[in-house]
Formats: sequence, structure tokens, C-alpha cells
Amino acid sequence: MTTAAVFGTGSWGTAFSAVLADSGTSVRMWGRRPELVDQINAGSNEDYLPGIRLPEGIRATTDPAEAAEGADIVVLAVPSQTLRHNLERWAHHLPRDAAVVSLMKGVELGTTKRMSEVIAEVGGVESERIVVVSGPNLAGEIALKQPAASVVACTDHATAERVADACWSTYFRPYTLTDVVGCEIGGAVKNVVALAVGMAEGMGMGDNSKASLITRGLAETTRLGVALGGDPATFAGLAGVGDLVATCSSPLSRNRTFGVNLGHGMAVKEVEAVTKQTAEGVKSCDSILQLAREHDVYVPIIEQVAAVVHEGRTPQQVVESLLSRARKHELE
Amino acid sequence: MTTAAVFGTGSWGTAFSAVLADSGTSVRMWGRRPELVDQINAGSNEDYLPGIRLPEGIRATTDPAEAAEGADIVVLAVPSQTLRHNLERWAHHLPRDAAVVSLMKGVELGTTKRMSEVIAEVGGVESERIVVVSGPNLAGEIALKQPAASVVACTDHATAERVADACWSTYFRPYTLTDVVGCEIGGAVKNVVALAVGMAEGMGMGDNSKASLITRGLAETTRLGVALGGDPATFAGLAGVGDLVATCSSPLSRNRTFGVNLGHGMAVKEVEAVTKQTAEGVKSCDSILQLAREHDVYVPIIEQVAAVVHEGRTPQQVVESLLSRARKHELE
Repeated sequence: MTTAAVFGTGSWGTAFSAVLADSGTSVRMWGRRPELVDQINAGSNEDYLPGIRLPEGIRATTDPAEAAEGADIVVLAVPSQTLRHNLERWAHHLPRDAAVVSLMKGVELGTTKRMSEVIAEVGGVESERIVVVSGPNLAGEIALKQPAASVVACTDHATAERVADACWSTYFRPYTLTDVVGCEIGGAVKNVVALAVGMAEGMGMGDNSKASLITRGLAETTRLGVALGGDPATFAGLAGVGDLVATCSSPLSRNRTFGVNLGHGMAVKEVEAVTKQTAEGVKSCDSILQLAREHDVYVPIIEQVAAVVHEGRTPQQVVESLLSRARKHELE
Repeated sequence: MTTAAVFGTGSWGTAFSAVLADSGTSVRMWGRRPELVDQINAGSNEDYLPGIRLPEGIRATTDPAEAAEGADIVVLAVPSQTLRHNLERWAHHLPRDAAVVSLMKGVELGTTKRMSEVIAEVGGVESERIVVVSGPNLAGEIALKQPAASVVACTDHATAERVADACWSTYFRPYTLTDVVGCEIGGAVKNVVALAVGMAEGMGMGDNSKASLITRGLAETTRLGVALGGDPATFAGLAGVGDLVATCSSPLSRNRTFGVNLGHGMAVKEVEAVTKQTAEGVKSCDSILQLAREHDVYVPIIEQVAAVVHEGRTPQQVVESLLSRARKHELE
């Protein structure tokens, strides 16, 4: 039987643990807080997936060594900006031949490194063992066992297959890819685009406007991803347009909801105070913008979102600016 | 001053007439029904755009010769399957140097011809004068002057520019392209995909499932369009993903709403009886499927929608079949 260690007890880490368990994989979760670990061992995670009964086959612990021991697959599902610090403490526990899966969708501030790069650097993991899972995968829906498709990417196709086998279930369909860079950029940039689409939604814009923003956001994501070595086809697939559309459509998306609140006229600090958390796109827009500038890629949506977060630009100014650019040939 | 003749008084023909008028173009609409023509001349079209006050500069007539006389731009906005019959009566009225714009999104039953091909054949119009306008353009939102971007495509770039100049306004942003085939296939196939997404919605599926269907629908549209000579980049743009996302998201979309009713368990005949009209995708799925078969293109979503419409296959069977295909490499 395949054994997976899942580090992180947030909504996606927990929902993916349920997917693994439903696929017949034995799961050990690591969590920081003893009371949440106890709750998971009693069969639920009310903080992040309220009302959901977790399947059999999931155990939780606060001890990283116990979680990691003998795992065939190690899944990392902590907030992006905490990965480096966490992994420094866990690295020596990770089995040397385990596949290491990133569920995280962000780019590290300061270094502009993708999560797989942090895993390689801090964890000493070879690229053939680093796997990215991404796609239209809102955790709340997956926990309800609603049908979803996903991408499992690794430069080594056999490793991708191994992980896909461990998370294949009646309601979760993993497709393998070898484009790790494309999947990571798709996942990270979509959070920023969702903030912009949320702002438009909050301002009362209709589906034409939002679809235009999604289209231009996809173009921007593709430009950046290709500049970094990603495959254009990835952005036309589940980890590109699929993830983007799900996130920009769903009231369950934290980034979109954060944008909606901004569009209603709230300031960034006010939204953070109300939601008690910072949306990933608010944090990642800086590192993604830096990455785009380093590679000389034109990313107007990311620029505008960063201006709202840091320069007090209003969503009205942003959405008007994004929708009113001078007329030109579409592919310029 | 540029003069445009708009044939058709449905919601999109009327909303596009308002865009032209707001852009400073003089508009003459042709309509079949005298009472609707009178209403438009009095400043509204309550049948198709209730509550909307039309801008100055739009006149309507039941006489095609009067509508067409001296027009720089002729806009065709009749139901796809009626174009051939209508154009046979109008062709000799059309000015010989006018740009002829298609707002129609369908493929002719029997011949599997795109609308531009019907215009060329029946109207005797050279390809340098045939223009397609497509994009995330829900008519009801455009009539409310909500910001929208669109694509104006013609094999002759100068003609595309001429039409784009005539419909450029504060709320409507046309981008030019030369890929007529891609724009037409994107517009036609999205109606069929919207039926499938509507079915999933009606069955209570979440945003992950719908985003997966949209992604696979885009892949299917791209495969067919490229097989017919379209540019892959078109499908990643406003006339591809943009139009698809807007249609699949909006309660204003007739095709999506038709699918929602099917997903709720109604039969095709029942939905037609309630909505008093047939959704374009219900008619076009046959000709699009035939086109795909002629070019040996794999189109599972179109096949399944056609099976619902003609073979009594249930939406449950369709959505399950589309979401539960065997696991494989994403790009296969």
C-alpha cells in the first residue's frame, strides 16, 4: 500500500488528503496545532472544511518525523511564504526516494523562486522527484466529492504516473504532464488575476467585462510562463484556463472574494481585518511582478493589482485602465 | 459619415446597432415586422432589449433596398439557418464595395458551411470584404453600455480596421484579427459547449466541474478550428476563451440556460415549449458534428450534446461520461 505524508492542515491539504485516502493511499498528516491534529484524528477539520466527514485512512500528528517516516509520497501544503522556513526543519526527515508534491500556488518573495525551486534548494530534492498538482480544484468542492480534473506534473513522467495512481478516484481525475514550470506559473498568476476579476465583480461589471479580464489574464500568464520555459499548451489546459476559470467564477475563492471586497470600496487593510487572512494573490503579486520585470514580460493586470495593494490605486482606476486600452491588433 | 445597414432586429443586431450609433456611425436597420420597425423608430426594442433606450442615429425600415442603399458597412444579424434564404433576396441590394459583417454564430445545416462561406457564395462577396465580429459580447450587457472587448476579423486587415473604426466607443473595444475561420468556429462551438456546461450547472455540479468542461470544450474547439485552417492563438483570445467563458458564466446566455433546464430534467421539447425558442447550439450541434467528422476531429462534448438532442441521452449520462474518462496524459 502506498503511504503519503501530507504537511499542512489547511483546506486544500486536508481535501487532498481525503482524495489520497479515497484512492486507497494511507495518509499521515502533519499539523502544527495539537487541537486540530486531534480533531483530524477524530475525523474532521472544522476550521478549514466545516461539516465534512473525513474518510478512513487518515492519521494526523504534530511530529514531522512520524509523519514522514517511510512515506512514498510527501505532500507539501503550507502557505507559500512559509515553505522555506518549514522545509529547513523537515528536510532531514524526508525519505530519500519519496516523490515530493507541491500543492502550493505562489512565488517566493525576495528570491522570486517557484515552490519547486525552493523544494529543490532547501530540501535537496532532485527534479525527477518534484511533482506539482494543479488545476480547477476548489478544495471545498473536492471535499464534497464533486467531480474534478487535475494535472500532476513532473519532469520525470514515471514519477508523475506514480503520484497520479495514488490520487485517482471516482471524483478526482489526475492527468499527467511534464511541464512543472507552466503548472506553477498558471497556479500562481491566477490568484492575482482573480483579484482583478473580483474587483470588477464588486464594481458591478458584467460577464463580458469579467471574461475580457480572464482572457487578458490568461494571455499575461502564458507570456510569463513561456518566458520562464513553460509550454504554451499548459496554459490552454486544466492548470491554465481551467484553474483560472474555476477561481474567477467561484464564491469559494479567497482571492476573488478579496477582490470583490476591494471592488465594493474597502481598503486592503479593511478586507484583511474582516477576512482574518491575506489572499495569496495579495502576497504573490509583488514577487510575480518582479519575476516579470526580470524577464521583460508585459503584465498590465499584475502591475495594476500591485498598485492597488501598495500604492492605494483604486479598483475603479484599475478596471477602467485595463478595459480601455487603445485599440489595436489582438495579438500584439 | 460612415453609414451601416443592419439586417436583423434581434438582441445582438439591435445592441450592435447601438454600438455603431454611439460610435458616430449612421445606422439603418432592416426588420421583417412593421410593428417592431415602428418601435425601433420610436427609440426602443422591447421584444429583445426591454427597458433599453436606443441612441439617436438609428432608423429602421421593412424595405431591404432602403436599408442597404449607399451603406459602407452591411451587418448581417439574422438566425444562422435563415441566412441563405434571406441573403438570396437581399444580395442584389448590397452595395458592391461595402464591408459585409457577420454577427452570426452557427454552421449551416446540410452544407456545413460557415456564415462567411454562405455570404461569399450567395452574396457574391469577395473574402476581402467579409468581416466577422465575435467575442465576449452578451447583447444585454452591451446594451447597458457595460465595458466589453471584441474581435473584428477579416482576411484583409484594412477592411477589419474600417469596421473597427465604425464600432469603437467608450464601452466597446474592437481588436482586429485576420483569422476569420478561427473566430467563426470559436463562436459556433461555444454555443454547444455552453449547453453542456448548463447541463452540469442544472445537475448541481460545482465550479471545478464546470471549469473542466470549459477547458475541454476549448481544447475541442481549438482542434476543430485548427483542422479547418484557424490560428491556435485565436482560441486563446477574446473570440475563443473570452466568448466561451462569458457565455458559460452568464444567466443571460440562451444556450447555457437551455442546458440548465435540461440538467433539471426537462426534455428538449419541453424546454423549447417553455423558452419559445430553440438555442443556437441545439441547431448547430449537428452541422458542427458533421464538420468534425468530415475532418476526423475528436469532439466528445459535441457528440454528447448531439446525443442528448437527438437520441434521448440524459444529461446525467453525458456529464458523467465527459468527466470520467480514463486517466491519461493531458495533451493526448
